[in-house]
Amino acid sequence: MRPTLVVLNAGSSSLKFQVFDRLDDVDPKVVWKGQYEGLGQRARFRVARDTAAIVDEAQWAAEEGVDHEFALMHLVTWLQQYRNERKLVAIGHRVVHGGDAYAAPVLVDDEVVARLETLSPLAPLHQPHNLQPIAIARRRIPDVPQVACFDTAFHHNQTEIATMYALPKDIRDRGVRRYGFHGLSYDYIASVLEDTDPRLASGRVVAAHLGNGASLCALSGGVSLATTMGFSALDGLPMGTRCGAIDASVVFYMLREMGHTAEEAERVLYTQSGLLGVSGLSNDMRTLRREAPSNADARKAIDLFVYRIIRETGSLIAVLGGIDGLIFTAGIGENDAATRAAVVAGLSWTGLTLDEAANTAGGPRISSSASPSAWVIPTNEELVIARQTRDVINAARHSV
Amino acid sequence: MRPTLVVLNAGSSSLKFQVFDRLDDVDPKVVWKGQYEGLGQRARFRVARDTAAIVDEAQWAAEEGVDHEFALMHLVTWLQQYRNERKLVAIGHRVVHGGDAYAAPVLVDDEVVARLETLSPLAPLHQPHNLQPIAIARRRIPDVPQVACFDTAFHHNQTEIATMYALPKDIRDRGVRRYGFHGLSYDYIASVLEDTDPRLASGRVVAAHLGNGASLCALSGGVSLATTMGFSALDGLPMGTRCGAIDASVVFYMLREMGHTAEEAERVLYTQSGLLGVSGLSNDMRTLRREAPSNADARKAIDLFVYRIIRETGSLIAVLGGIDGLIFTAGIGENDAATRAAVVAGLSWTGLTLDEAANTAGGPRISSSASPSAWVIPTNEELVIARQTRDVINAARHSV
Repeated sequence: MRPTLVVLNAGSSSLKFQVFDRLDDVDPKVVWKGQYEGLGQRARFRVARDTAAIVDEAQWAAEEGVDHEFALMHLVTWLQQYRNERKLVAIGHRVVHGGDAYAAPVLVDDEVVARLETLSPLAPLHQPHNLQPIAIARRRIPDVPQVACFDTAFHHNQTEIATMYALPKDIRDRGVRRYGFHGLSYDYIASVLEDTDPRLASGRVVAAHLGNGASLCALSGGVSLATTMGFSALDGLPMGTRCGAIDASVVFYMLREMGHTAEEAERVLYTQSGLLGVSGLSNDMRTLRREAPSNADARKAIDLFVYRIIRETGSLIAVLGGIDGLIFTAGIGENDAATRAAVVAGLSWTGLTLDEAANTAGGPRISSSASPSAWVIPTNEELVIARQTRDVINAARHSV
Repeated sequence: MRPTLVVLNAGSSSLKFQVFDRLDDVDPKVVWKGQYEGLGQRARFRVARDTAAIVDEAQWAAEEGVDHEFALMHLVTWLQQYRNERKLVAIGHRVVHGGDAYAAPVLVDDEVVARLETLSPLAPLHQPHNLQPIAIARRRIPDVPQVACFDTAFHHNQTEIATMYALPKDIRDRGVRRYGFHGLSYDYIASVLEDTDPRLASGRVVAAHLGNGASLCALSGGVSLATTMGFSALDGLPMGTRCGAIDASVVFYMLREMGHTAEEAERVLYTQSGLLGVSGLSNDMRTLRREAPSNADARKAIDLFVYRIIRETGSLIAVLGGIDGLIFTAGIGENDAATRAAVVAGLSWTGLTLDEAANTAGGPRISSSASPSAWVIPTNEELVIARQTRDVINAARHSV
C-alpha cells in the first residue's frame, strides 16, 4: 500500500485539498487536486488529476447543509475507494498564524490546538477557519496524524528590529509585532533558487508573491530578512480587496467621522478596498486589464498596485543592501506580463532591464540583465506543506 | 517705521513666535525669537535676540489663567514698546493642514477660516490649536492681515497615485489620502539646494526631517514626489512619541482585545509610542544616547529609528529612480551625529560613504563621496513662513 498524505487549505466557505504520494522522494508527488466550494450554501466538489483531467465531481442543494465537516468526511470516504492501494498517513494543514511559539511545522496534539486557538485574535479572519478541519479530523479520524504548517514560520528568524512596531512594551508583550505571511510560498521560492540561478541562492533577492493576497519578501541567502505584511495580512501592498498599508489615523477617521464600528471599518479595509476599492469594478487583475483601455479607475487601480510594489521593493532593497534578483510568483506574478513589465521598468535604476519577449512568454528569466535578474517562478505552497508534513511525521516516527 | 511681521506656531499649551523685519530683502531678517509655554497652567514667556541673548522674560501663576489669547495680546503689547520704530504689517501662522483647497499660503478671511475649520477632523490634535491664534487675532487686532502657511502645501503637486490609499471611492472622496507634512521645512531645504550643491537642486534628493516629529521627503529638482507621512502626522517613521507606520489591524486589536476606546488607542499611538514607547524611558534622543551604553531598550529604540529611516529611504529612492543627495535636518538630524552615521552606513549600497570628521563636526557635507552626497542643513520653517507671509501681503497689496 502506498503511503499517501492530504494537504488541506480551509477558508470560510471552502476546503481545498491536494493528495500526495511518493513520500520517500525529495519532493512528494501530487496525485489529485480538488476543492469543496460554497460550503454552508450550494456546495460543490471537484477533483482532478495532476494533469488537470477531472476525475470526479458532485454538488449538493443548499438545504443539504454541506459544511466543512461533511466535506472533510466526504473526502476521506472518497479516498476509501483506493483503500487497497493507499494508506492515508497524515494530513497537513495550512495554518496562517504560528505566533511566537512555532518557528516550524508541528505535529498537532491537545497543547498545539490550544495554543493555536489563542492566536485567533491575531488573525480573526483566517485562523479560526484554518483550525476548523484540524478539530474535525481529530474528532472523526483520530488515528491519522495532523501537521500544522504556518504562513508565519518562514519569517521567524527575522531580527527583533525588523519585526518591531514602535509601540509601548505592554502592547508588544501581547504579541503585537510584524509576523509576515505567505511564508509557505517564500519557502518554496527559496527552495528552488539554487536550481534557478546559483547567484540567487546566495544573493539578495526580492520575491513578489502577487496574488489576491500580495506581499514582498527580502531573501538573503534564501533566508527572510523582512516582508511587507505585518501584524496581519492587511498590511503592505494593496491587494485584491485589502487596502495594504494605510495611516492608522484613517481607522480613527472611519470610526469617528464616518460612524463605523470597528467591525464595519475592518470589513471595508479587508473586503472592499485594494484593487476593488480603487477600481470600483473588480478585485481581479484580468478584469482590470480588460477594462483599463476605456476605464480610468481600472487604470488607477493597476497604477497604484505597481507603484506600491516599486516603493516596497525599494524598501526591501535597503534591507538587503542591493538586489541580485527579483522573483515574480502567484496569480498576478505568474500570469500578468504587463504588471511585471511595469515593475521592472520602475526598478531600472537598479540595473534591471526587461527581456520583452521572455516576459511575454512567461519566463523563466524575464530580464535581459543577468545581474540583477528577474524571473517568473510558479509557487507551490501545497508542495511545501507536503514536504513539511512528511518530514514532521518521519521525525516523530524516529523519535518514538 | 520699519515694517515688521510676526510668525506664530501655536500648540496645545504653547505659542512660539519670531519677529522679522527687512521685508524687502530676499530673506526677511529675524529680530527676536520667543515663546509662551505652559499656557493654561504656570505660563512662562521668554524672548531672545537672534543672537540668543535673552531680552525679556515673564511668568505667571497657574491661577492667573494665562491662555493663548492673553499670550497673543501680551506679545502685541510687548511689541508696542517699539511702536515708534516698527509697524506690525502681518502675522504669518503655521497651519498644519491646508487640505485639498490650499496649495499655497493664503490671506485669511471668513471663507478661509471656515474652510480650515472643516479640516480639523483630518488633524484633530494639531489643526484646532493652529487656528486658535488666527481667530483671536482677527477678533482683537482685526486691522492686521493674517496669512496661513501650510505644512501640507509643499506636497500638493504629488501625483494622484503617490497620494492615494487603496480605499473605496466614498472614503477617498471625503479627503482620505496621503497629504504629507513638514512641508515648510522641506520648502526651506529645497530653497537652499542650489547654494549647497547645484547637482542637488536639479537632482534626486531624500530630505530627512528628524525631530520630535520625523518624516522623509523625496525631492526631484526641488519638487516633492513623495513623503513618509500620510493622511495624518502619525504615519511613516517612528517619532518621539508617535508610532509611525503600523498595520491598521493593530488598531482593531487595541479596540477589541485591549478594550481601548478609539480616543484611548489614538492617545497611545500619538503620545506613548515611538522612541518613548520602545525605550520606556524618553522621547528625547539625547537621553537615549546617554543611556544606551547600559540600557538595551534605549538601544532598541535608536536601532528601530535608524532601521526605519533606512527602509523608508529605500522606498523613496525607488520613487526617485536613484539618489544624488541625502539631507539631514531638524533636531536629531542636525545634532545627532551617531544617527546620521548609522543611516549613511545602512545606505552604503547606494555609494554613500561617511566623512567621519565632517560628520562629527556637524557638516555641512558629511560624505566623502561627492555623488551621492550627504549633508547637514539646519532647517528654518519660520523663515519660510516669513517669506510666504511677506509675498502674500505684497501680492494682496498689488492686486487691490
